[in-house]
Amino acid sequence: MKGVIFHKPNSKDLALEVESFLRSNGFDVEISERNLESYDFIVVVGGDGTVLRVLQSLHVCPPIFAINTGRIGLLTHCEPENYKEKLLKSLESFDVEEFMRLKCELDGEILALNEIAIICSIPAKLVEMKVYVDDVLIDVLRCDGMLISTPIGSTAYALSIGGPIVDPHLNSILIVPVAPFKLGWKPWVVSESRTVRIEFDRSVFVVADGQNPLKLNPGELTVRRSEYPARFFKLENRIEKIVNRLKEI
Amino acid sequence: MKGVIFHKPNSKDLALEVESFLRSNGFDVEISERNLESYDFIVVVGGDGTVLRVLQSLHVCPPIFAINTGRIGLLTHCEPENYKEKLLKSLESFDVEEFMRLKCELDGEILALNEIAIICSIPAKLVEMKVYVDDVLIDVLRCDGMLISTPIGSTAYALSIGGPIVDPHLNSILIVPVAPFKLGWKPWVVSESRTVRIEFDRSVFVVADGQNPLKLNPGELTVRRSEYPARFFKLENRIEKIVNRLKEI
Amino acid sequence: MKGVIFHKPNSKDLALEVESFLRSNGFDVEISERNLESYDFIVVVGGDGTVLRVLQSLHVCPPIFAINTGRIGLLTHCEPENYKEKLLKSLESFDVEEFMRLKCELDGEILALNEIAIICSIPAKLVEMKVYVDDVLIDVLRCDGMLISTPIGSTAYALSIGGPIVDPHLNSILIVPVAPFKLGWKPWVVSESRTVRIEFDRSVFVVADGQNPLKLNPGELTVRRSEYPARFFKLENRIEKIVNRLKEI
Amino acid sequence: MKGVIFHKPNSKDLALEVESFLRSNGFDVEISERNLESYDFIVVVGGDGTVLRVLQSLHVCPPIFAINTGRIGLLTHCEPENYKEKLLKSLESFDVEEFMRLKCELDGEILALNEIAIICSIPAKLVEMKVYVDDVLIDVLRCDGMLISTPIGSTAYALSIGGPIVDPHLNSILIVPVAPFKLGWKPWVVSESRTVRIEFDRSVFVVADGQNPLKLNPGELTVRRSEYPARFFKLENRIEKIVNRLKEI
Repeated sequence: MKGVIFHKPNSKDLALEVESFLRSNGFDVEISERNLESYDFIVVVGGDGTVLRVLQSLHVCPPIFAINTGRIGLLTHCEPENYKEKLLKSLESFDVEEFMRLKCELDGEILALNEIAIICSIPAKLVEMKVYVDDVLIDVLRCDGMLISTPIGSTAYALSIGGPIVDPHLNSILIVPVAPFKLGWKPWVVSESRTVRIEFDRSVFVVADGQNPLKLNPGELTVRRSEYPARFFKLENRIEKIVNRLKEI
Repeated sequence: MKGVIFHKPNSKDLALEVESFLRSNGFDVEISERNLESYDFIVVVGGDGTVLRVLQSLHVCPPIFAINTGRIGLLTHCEPENYKEKLLKSLESFDVEEFMRLKCELDGEILALNEIAIICSIPAKLVEMKVYVDDVLIDVLRCDGMLISTPIGSTAYALSIGGPIVDPHLNSILIVPVAPFKLGWKPWVVSESRTVRIEFDRSVFVVADGQNPLKLNPGELTVRRSEYPARFFKLENRIEKIVNRLKEI
Repeated sequence: MKGVIFHKPNSKDLALEVESFLRSNGFDVEISERNLESYDFIVVVGGDGTVLRVLQSLHVCPPIFAINTGRIGLLTHCEPENYKEKLLKSLESFDVEEFMRLKCELDGEILALNEIAIICSIPAKLVEMKVYVDDVLIDVLRCDGMLISTPIGSTAYALSIGGPIVDPHLNSILIVPVAPFKLGWKPWVVSESRTVRIEFDRSVFVVADGQNPLKLNPGELTVRRSEYPARFFKLENRIEKIVNRLKEI
Repeated sequence: MKGVIFHKPNSKDLALEVESFLRSNGFDVEISERNLESYDFIVVVGGDGTVLRVLQSLHVCPPIFAINTGRIGLLTHCEPENYKEKLLKSLESFDVEEFMRLKCELDGEILALNEIAIICSIPAKLVEMKVYVDDVLIDVLRCDGMLISTPIGSTAYALSIGGPIVDPHLNSILIVPVAPFKLGWKPWVVSESRTVRIEFDRSVFVVADGQNPLKLNPGELTVRRSEYPARFFKLENRIEKIVNRLKEI
């Protein structure tokens, strides 16, 4: 069994410390940014953003343990001060939980743990969007954009635009418009097995997990659950974690 | 195989017509209001309210086919004008779908297909409520009340107070406060396997599916998924049905 | 110039203390609950609820100074610990600000500083309401009730049901439905000179400032700005007061 | 008295028709796009967007009569089919109503009839904003942007992000965040005399009435009521107009 440590640029010192700590405890680990799929587990030293970036490069996902050196940590397991015991315990028990991800085809497959955002490419302009669930047209709106989000993502961007909080263990897909110029609309939470298709009449940016906006001409985008979930070492209580996060933001 | 026809008071003529129609097609049916659990299927002649009332009397639920003589029909299969073909087809294919229900213990077990509402017994007064999910305190609010709703109920009372629309085939529990006197709160959608407990510091009415308010002293109420789902003859497309309903309200 | 001290039952000791304090400073005051209109100023010892109760008995309103012995004090000027300096300063400068009130005719005129709530008399039942502004029908909704609120009331009940925060110095009337069973609706903020009329098709409770529900048969209710504003000794900064209150709730 | 006709590019034919119609009725008018301030009245042939563009070029605003050749017309007086009688009546009575505008200093003074939007310059990224009303900090949020809107603008962009509908005759300023990543926040409606200042920690676009985004470095922007209101020939009933518009969107 071989592990890898991935760190954000300004957290190299801690990454080195973690490396020696794990080696001195008999674990075969190294620091790297490449071929992360080929390892048996990943220790991320960084914030939620670092975890999201690591995940975008992975299809098959080795279990992740994350030490938070960032701002808010929903996806992280502990702080730099108290990582040792929790990390050892996680690696010994190897108790893992999975969270669904979303995918869309767009110049290659794009994966998202939080959400895929489709945003009008011109600020403060409206784009008309048609929203289909399994080919049923559920809404037509002029809006700034549309979010297709996972349950994990319900405490990220979707929270800002009126989405509900969704249990991370309830596999499902959230559909929430951004600034809909319409009196009557609702966020939807649909089964993970549904296919969501969005049509748009202007060019848009597609932004997965807040990374690398891709510009798209008027047309459509189809979003589905990915067959490659994210995998994390288990946390004691996810609901508690969410409640604490909500207090921080 | 024996079926029963249950009708609301003002729909007796149609019920009689349905009875002869089914008999002339070789089905053994009778009109009754009793022992509904003992039949193999139920034909309801009435509106959503009639279906909800029938369901409150049932634990084990024979498949229901409903002919809408009411206002809005989310739970009904057709209108009086066009029931014949659909009814025959349903009885012949016997294709059935199940929807989860909620239960709470309160002077006997109470079942709800839409929602269990806990409402302050004094109008325009605040009650402090503590909301627990699997014993984790997720929110404390002073409010007019609290709704625990099913996905089917997401287009009923929960819709009025800021809940999302939830796919009826996504088994889950919605928790939405009524008029929370608090700046920051969110509707929650949690896994069907969770236990929801509400504590309240004033007397409340407990109202299941809008029927028969029961007064409760200050204390707590626990709500869980019932092991007895509602069963309906299958509709062609539930999402489409919801979209149409949303246009009507 | 003669002042009166009005206290809530459990604050008698403090009221007596305030009385001697003011007398020793040369003010002619007495403790009373009657004929409050006939005094030149009122010192209220109690919470927001006490102030609201005092105001309901007054048409012409002598300036009020309130010492908070309650929970949240938006309408109060200070805490029991620090009333002396502020009270003296207020009485000496006699700098007063006015806040509009609402009125409706109902078995005599009813006044409200916060809001007039029209609530369905049966819990968890819908009443159909038609909302008119200067005889223009602005909305028809099935709902639990309707609030007509002042700017001061925008941080009271109206806050719980989706109303905006309105500057207390912006004379205006808020109209916000309670739990509207409708996809598309909006809170309205209209000019203080408008007449708001609500029609309802079931019996309702009318509740002014949370006090004494009055039952009304199906019909209509007209709400207007009262020609008798509430008058308070001036606070240093009302916006700051609101911001602090919002942090507390 | 001399009038001017301003038309959007594709409405030239109608503009010519209006010109001859007015001349044949004894009015001195010409078609032009320049020096609009120097005329005694303006007839706009176009949609709301055309009216907004005309207004951005005007400080002192001659009364505007607008014939709608666009999509939705809140700011227009009639359709091409029925302009004659209304136009004549307006010019004869010369009954005018004023609506407040907002201004900000930014490479010259910028005016807005609907709203001034401050939007993060990077799509799907958060900017931290501090909101001050008369130098009181009322909120700090990480968000996609912030809107400062007039009452007329309450049915434009502000409607999309959770603002209330505000009576166009209630002079006031709305402050509504765009996609705030925060659990608890509220739209504010403050007196027209208030000064609103927004601080932001990233570069933003400033967009007045949806026109010409201007990029701004991290810093602050101050928004106030302009001393130059927009002036329109009077419409019979503004509230009715709004209600009808809300039905259309």
